[in-house]
Amino acid sequence: MANYKNNKKTSPKKTNNKVYKKVNISRIPTKSKANSKSNKISSKSPLKIIPLGGLEEIGKNCTVFEYENEIIVVDCGLAFPDDEMLGIDIVIPDLTYLTKNKDKIKGVFITHGHEDHIGAVPYLLKEIIAPVYSRALTLGLIEGKLEEHGIGNAKLIEKKPGDKVKCGKFTVEFIHVNHSIPDAVAFAINTPVGTILMTGDFKFDSTPINGDMIDIARISELGRNGVLALLSDSTNAERTGITLSEKTVGASFESLFKGAKKDRIIVATFSSNIHRMQQIINEAVKCGRKVAVSGRSMTNVVEVATRLGYLSIPQGVLIDIKSINSYAPHQLVIITTGSQGEPMSALHRMAQKQHKNVTITPNDTIIISASPIPGNEKTVSNVVNGLMKLGANVIYEKMYDVHVSGHACKEELKMMLAMVKPKFFIPVHGEEKQLSHHKELARQVGIKDKNILISENGRVIELNKNSISQKETVHSGRVLVDGYGVGDVGSIVLRDRKHLAEDGIIIVVMTMDSASGEVVSGPDIVSRGFVYVRESEELMNDIKETVYNSIDRLYNNDVYDWVAIKTKIRDELSRFLYERTKRSPMILPIIMQI
Amino acid sequence: MANYKNNKKTSPKKTNNKVYKKVNISRIPTKSKANSKSNKISSKSPLKIIPLGGLEEIGKNCTVFEYENEIIVVDCGLAFPDDEMLGIDIVIPDLTYLTKNKDKIKGVFITHGHEDHIGAVPYLLKEIIAPVYSRALTLGLIEGKLEEHGIGNAKLIEKKPGDKVKCGKFTVEFIHVNHSIPDAVAFAINTPVGTILMTGDFKFDSTPINGDMIDIARISELGRNGVLALLSDSTNAERTGITLSEKTVGASFESLFKGAKKDRIIVATFSSNIHRMQQIINEAVKCGRKVAVSGRSMTNVVEVATRLGYLSIPQGVLIDIKSINSYAPHQLVIITTGSQGEPMSALHRMAQKQHKNVTITPNDTIIISASPIPGNEKTVSNVVNGLMKLGANVIYEKMYDVHVSGHACKEELKMMLAMVKPKFFIPVHGEEKQLSHHKELARQVGIKDKNILISENGRVIELNKNSISQKETVHSGRVLVDGYGVGDVGSIVLRDRKHLAEDGIIIVVMTMDSASGEVVSGPDIVSRGFVYVRESEELMNDIKETVYNSIDRLYNNDVYDWVAIKTKIRDELSRFLYERTKRSPMILPIIMQI
Repeated sequence: MANYKNNKKTSPKKTNNKVYKKVNISRIPTKSKANSKSNKISSKSPLKIIPLGGLEEIGKNCTVFEYENEIIVVDCGLAFPDDEMLGIDIVIPDLTYLTKNKDKIKGVFITHGHEDHIGAVPYLLKEIIAPVYSRALTLGLIEGKLEEHGIGNAKLIEKKPGDKVKCGKFTVEFIHVNHSIPDAVAFAINTPVGTILMTGDFKFDSTPINGDMIDIARISELGRNGVLALLSDSTNAERTGITLSEKTVGASFESLFKGAKKDRIIVATFSSNIHRMQQIINEAVKCGRKVAVSGRSMTNVVEVATRLGYLSIPQGVLIDIKSINSYAPHQLVIITTGSQGEPMSALHRMAQKQHKNVTITPNDTIIISASPIPGNEKTVSNVVNGLMKLGANVIYEKMYDVHVSGHACKEELKMMLAMVKPKFFIPVHGEEKQLSHHKELARQVGIKDKNILISENGRVIELNKNSISQKETVHSGRVLVDGYGVGDVGSIVLRDRKHLAEDGIIIVVMTMDSASGEVVSGPDIVSRGFVYVRESEELMNDIKETVYNSIDRLYNNDVYDWVAIKTKIRDELSRFLYERTKRSPMILPIIMQI
Repeated sequence: MANYKNNKKTSPKKTNNKVYKKVNISRIPTKSKANSKSNKISSKSPLKIIPLGGLEEIGKNCTVFEYENEIIVVDCGLAFPDDEMLGIDIVIPDLTYLTKNKDKIKGVFITHGHEDHIGAVPYLLKEIIAPVYSRALTLGLIEGKLEEHGIGNAKLIEKKPGDKVKCGKFTVEFIHVNHSIPDAVAFAINTPVGTILMTGDFKFDSTPINGDMIDIARISELGRNGVLALLSDSTNAERTGITLSEKTVGASFESLFKGAKKDRIIVATFSSNIHRMQQIINEAVKCGRKVAVSGRSMTNVVEVATRLGYLSIPQGVLIDIKSINSYAPHQLVIITTGSQGEPMSALHRMAQKQHKNVTITPNDTIIISASPIPGNEKTVSNVVNGLMKLGANVIYEKMYDVHVSGHACKEELKMMLAMVKPKFFIPVHGEEKQLSHHKELARQVGIKDKNILISENGRVIELNKNSISQKETVHSGRVLVDGYGVGDVGSIVLRDRKHLAEDGIIIVVMTMDSASGEVVSGPDIVSRGFVYVRESEELMNDIKETVYNSIDRLYNNDVYDWVAIKTKIRDELSRFLYERTKRSPMILPIIMQI
């Protein structure tokens, strides 16, 4: 991994937050007084917080912190396209504001390695030069992405919980939190107007699989010292109670593995959930089973996580998926991708009898160790149905506690709010409904209504010691990535795709003599995605007839203008087709000239 | 309503089930002995049960019962298209088997008025002539459909619970059940091989809004007398416990209406859930509020249900949606469509600020009194987010008990199985996963594994007194309806639509002189849904260049064959585009001839 020293571009200018200058790596309890002093230093400029993504949506988290002429960026993730975005692979934040202000950017800080927090980093680093600070696993995952994008010169700087990074007038402290991927952190960002705490994705887990519980001590300490604003994860703000510990899943695995007896066991989960994987492997080892891994992303993550020491697999346990047939079913556990029913995933291929190495039989116990992400319910159902049809015993959804969320529920969110006691609260990482519920929780904890701000992407939030306000809107939005194309598919192209998807296209093509205006070839009718032409001969003939009649009428009125002819054909054919079929295919008249 | 006497076409031939001949309308307790006697009458022919829809899916329920040369059909519903069926409006069962055997069909029996049970009736009645038997509301809803389809000569025959209809060798008894629409029935079908009980959609509701609880007495009696096979609703077979009574929703409305105080109240629900509507109206009346209705299907159902006496609205309570501005918010309740977030629904338009009559403000309390149907989670979320952004207080999903299902959960399903004690059990109305869970419940109740059959659409099930078996497969499947087109969009057209939706189309058009083989016009490139052409000039030029080069190379090799030219252009352009853009638009070369 490319580890570099602190980026030299980081401005060494003198700043006001002297307290933090003294502490570099180890955690030194900071007296409330000292901190409130730093808060009291007069600062005329406000702090600007500009979310470029992550509000009004779950996905593409990217938040800009700007003070005078310095910027730091927290997270730069992607979102998955919704159903309307036909043919789109991923969605990234519109980074125009950052590219326009590239000279101001002092550093990029990443909370953890999920796609919605790191997925757009390569697109950002193609446009700007700045060091990227994060923990080892996160950087390992980013590195893989940069390689795919052919970005070789990035500065990736590894930090640990407790570390503080000075970036111009900002000092960013790494604070350990629990989440569904190792190495997740929150950031305490010390700024000239006060301390901002950005939780990143988090939950409270007092019995995590690896490492410690979320650093409650440090978070409480910050709270005691005074936090100006809290930006906190709203994902589960609609859910009551608390999120169960990852360890509860281990207990379910234990009983399910025992119950599986002679069966082969297949577990589908998120490839990034290394703790989950570790628990599956532990259980496999206990039962004397070998472990094989299926699916590209799963294989990648196992490689990175093992190399970096995040996954511990005893010698001889991991076997190649190609060699599973040398073992009896009860000697095997297969960990696979596809827990969301994704059409190209390994589990989906198993359900469709299209997996190269795995053939599902009634001797399979299959555990889907994940909840469907909203929108994926149907694809997951389809996979479950497919696997059951092949006779497998499938454990899914709420049948057992085979999945826990990585995000804090209501009681935990209130705990965070109560510990941090922020002056201002900005719920982030959620759609309107999650943000609204989170706002309500903050109210319950005693934060004044006027001090809670539900904002929107692109809107500048200005913070002073005593005030929060919404200002102008900067260029922001979503950029659609389709193949190698970044942003070349916009609303017009999407509208056309939708139109084509609904009713197909009818192309009317003819060749005209430019001198005489005479049609010398055609009109020919070609259609795609409209009707099955071979069985709709009569309709196709009537379409031709309609076009002939349109042209005849124009010629009889001495109209030879191409634009007029095209418009007439489009209008009349459109009307004819709607009356006849109640459909509106795209109609594309093409006139060639000789 | 068109009520006819018992259809004269029904064959009056003498049959063996003499016991049932005696009972015509009133319910006469039948002695166990008598019934078992009728079962003992030797019958060489097996009963055939052929599901044409409703297995491996939730939707398009349609089951054929065939004995020798007589057929009755139970239900004929539609399904909604899944995401892959681009541009498709509805899906109906392939009815070929019925049209081929139209002379055998003695009657069509409908359990209740939901779309997945009545939606394909018009398509069936365009092909066959047979009386349709059902209860009044169901027939009222069917009648509306027939009118839309211009079918005037249908025989709709109203029956009541307890009624028995003799149809050739079948006698069909109507049995009252609880469901989320009034007038739902199960059918006890007496056949020469024994009695078949088909539950239709049902739940147990001891405190229904209108009418009685499900007729447990008659169902138990049938069970005591001996039921050969049970076909039972599997929709909620994955859910533990029981489904709550519709009345619990009323209690939630009561407290929410009280809490809404000065707010206007808007409730979204299924238009067919007349009991729900009645409870909303009752609560409105109690609070002295007027009721307005929004959404076409809601307005229709209110009209039909009021006319037929299923909905009781005190004089002066119902007001026109156009007149709501004459009332203060606290004087109003609006009942609306759109509980599934459907893009054109009234609630969706309210959320998008596009509703003609209703403008959402922070003075609105909006209750979504429905659960998202699997697949609709995202559209519902979008609507909730939109309404919340406008400041409304939105009650949705599991925040309160504002919705109960219409289908029996595990404990109720077991109760049905235990009451009926069928010899053979065929779980229906569900995907593989629901059917499997239902099978497991039957096992728990003591039905032997070999007597439980999970079948598939189109597969003939043969039943004798002592055996159940799967036989040949008849023509079946799904027919896609797009506009007026029934079945003219097949897999090829869908594949094209999907291709167009993903990456758009590039049309390469040129005119050739047929004598010389010379290109006299073009090649021109036209694209739709591919890239935004104005911002991709370079790419478009390179596409042209690629096409020119392809043609040049062919001409240099003296290839003038059209097919060869088209293939070459398609292949080379496709390769170029994938390398350049990682996309695969449809490429359509068109050569005109002069």
